[in-house]
Amino acid sequence: MPGSPDSTAERPRGKLHPSVAKTREAVRTALSDLPTGTTVLVACSGGTDSLALAAATAFEAPKLGLRAGAVIVDHDLQPDSARTAEVAAEQCRGLGLDPVEVRAVQVGTDGGPEGAARTARYDALRAAADEFGADVVLLAHTRDDQAETVLLGLGRGSGARSLAGMAAVAGLLRRPLLEVPRSTTAAACVAAGLRPWHDPHNDDPTYTRVRVRHEVLPVLEEALGPGVVEALARTAGLLRADADALDMLAANLAETAVRRTDDEVRCEVGMLADEPAALRTRVLRQAALEAGSRATDLSAVHVAAVDALITDWRGQRWIDLPQRVRAIRRGGFIVFGPDMTG
Amino acid sequence: MPGSPDSTAERPRGKLHPSVAKTREAVRTALSDLPTGTTVLVACSGGTDSLALAAATAFEAPKLGLRAGAVIVDHDLQPDSARTAEVAAEQCRGLGLDPVEVRAVQVGTDGGPEGAARTARYDALRAAADEFGADVVLLAHTRDDQAETVLLGLGRGSGARSLAGMAAVAGLLRRPLLEVPRSTTAAACVAAGLRPWHDPHNDDPTYTRVRVRHEVLPVLEEALGPGVVEALARTAGLLRADADALDMLAANLAETAVRRTDDEVRCEVGMLADEPAALRTRVLRQAALEAGSRATDLSAVHVAAVDALITDWRGQRWIDLPQRVRAIRRGGFIVFGPDMTG
Repeated sequence: MPGSPDSTAERPRGKLHPSVAKTREAVRTALSDLPTGTTVLVACSGGTDSLALAAATAFEAPKLGLRAGAVIVDHDLQPDSARTAEVAAEQCRGLGLDPVEVRAVQVGTDGGPEGAARTARYDALRAAADEFGADVVLLAHTRDDQAETVLLGLGRGSGARSLAGMAAVAGLLRRPLLEVPRSTTAAACVAAGLRPWHDPHNDDPTYTRVRVRHEVLPVLEEALGPGVVEALARTAGLLRADADALDMLAANLAETAVRRTDDEVRCEVGMLADEPAALRTRVLRQAALEAGSRATDLSAVHVAAVDALITDWRGQRWIDLPQRVRAIRRGGFIVFGPDMTG
Repeated sequence: MPGSPDSTAERPRGKLHPSVAKTREAVRTALSDLPTGTTVLVACSGGTDSLALAAATAFEAPKLGLRAGAVIVDHDLQPDSARTAEVAAEQCRGLGLDPVEVRAVQVGTDGGPEGAARTARYDALRAAADEFGADVVLLAHTRDDQAETVLLGLGRGSGARSLAGMAAVAGLLRRPLLEVPRSTTAAACVAAGLRPWHDPHNDDPTYTRVRVRHEVLPVLEEALGPGVVEALARTAGLLRADADALDMLAANLAETAVRRTDDEVRCEVGMLADEPAALRTRVLRQAALEAGSRATDLSAVHVAAVDALITDWRGQRWIDLPQRVRAIRRGGFIVFGPDMTG
């Protein structure tokens, strides 16, 4: 495509800039399993990461026989947001993506400013995918985003799942750049002559993620040495695999150890007592959720107290759990049911 | 024991200071399973945590029918170390511990200054336990130490085990204060009229742990909010349980899937292919270790490359692993053996 923004990255005799090669390779790998004719949509904000992703996808998708478009979500959170979205859309069209559409969304307040914006964005992306018949939406999260997500999870203290970061593939969503450093996407934009938009939110310390990026990570890197970002991203992948395996094994165990009735969930003590704690507590946690406790309210401390009804049974009373669920040991079972006392 | 340093903590009519009650309760719980007549040794530096531990042990052990002594390891790393050790020993004797002994050790250089000191200390503690017929050595690591250990593990990026912190029980060693904050041990020393030694190493930023304590943790707490130390310590416990379960399940799987000969370790592809990645990679890692790679050199990246011989088999050549071990796919097996080419 002579004259397209990406063409400056194409130099004769293997002179392709390494950052461009790296982002393209990452996209190629992430899309390699898709059947010919599949439509993929890049979620593009016009920022560095998603512009590099858009450029790499525009280059790789046709070679794989895929159709590639882009969706720009306008969160309407900044005065210039409509103009910013239109510039990003123009850049995507210039890269050869088609269709390219801007979707304006209304950000609510549930889950805090970051959570509400994320919910609105993902809803809009799913709706666009549905409309355009796209089977895949590509998100531009990098290795640095992954490292930040792990650190954000540290504050929750709820085990492997909270440190497992973002999945490379989750339903319709794929994250091809999850092992690519942010410095590479930035270099790829420069090499390709692309002019990314700088989101002022990325420097706003009222966002926890921004504080983690600009305050925590540099100090952590100084204390532990370089390579921390890479180590955190690797940790996420390993812990995700661990959590997936343990969740699956716990689900298998629950099939025989857990019984449901209309208003109770019963776990058979004899089937759980000799299992490793990691499986036993997962089965108990799941039973509490089925009985009505909310995942966001049910802590590891609650689950440990229920587990003690098995591992440290001394005739305790019931354990009170969130959403007025009670766990009690009765006749060889841990019974989760509603608290009837008021 | 009127007149003993601990006696100031004993006030009439339930006026025991909460910090003293908390450390004692933690020690009582940690020792409750020991048979009468067992000897336990407190590893005491004279610092805040170990002095609080010594005081709590001196109070609780006799009530449980246990004999409690103390070992003070003199690392000979500071000009006054012999004198410091003798003061700590005197304090332990004043608390009623018996026997109380100072052990001078020579710190080598292997594993860096912190690692070498730890190795020398643990060797001395084991030797003292052996000599005094002690079945248990108590270490004074607190919840804050545990949180720091998790953060130190983040830089390694080698998964659950590197974030699992320290074990509450490991062979002869027990850590009764692993869920007790450092602020509690400090308050317990004040309440009991004990005068802890302040180790200048605790403020020396050449130690990574000191940088984590004084630089990383405050910044992390500021970014993520209070409760980070507690969350990190809880994470350690949950990930330890996960790692224990997965290691056990992987060992079970290896019993059928792995065969050893004099110079090779063979893993049967057909038995591993459908297992979850968390188990498969653990079996492969263990096989590489058995074939001669060192745990400190064998990374998750190595293991992932070997795993691709199963999950992404395209007729690759062998994978080179540390200590000149090679992994190659041959006849339905992943074969780990010596690299014969040099």
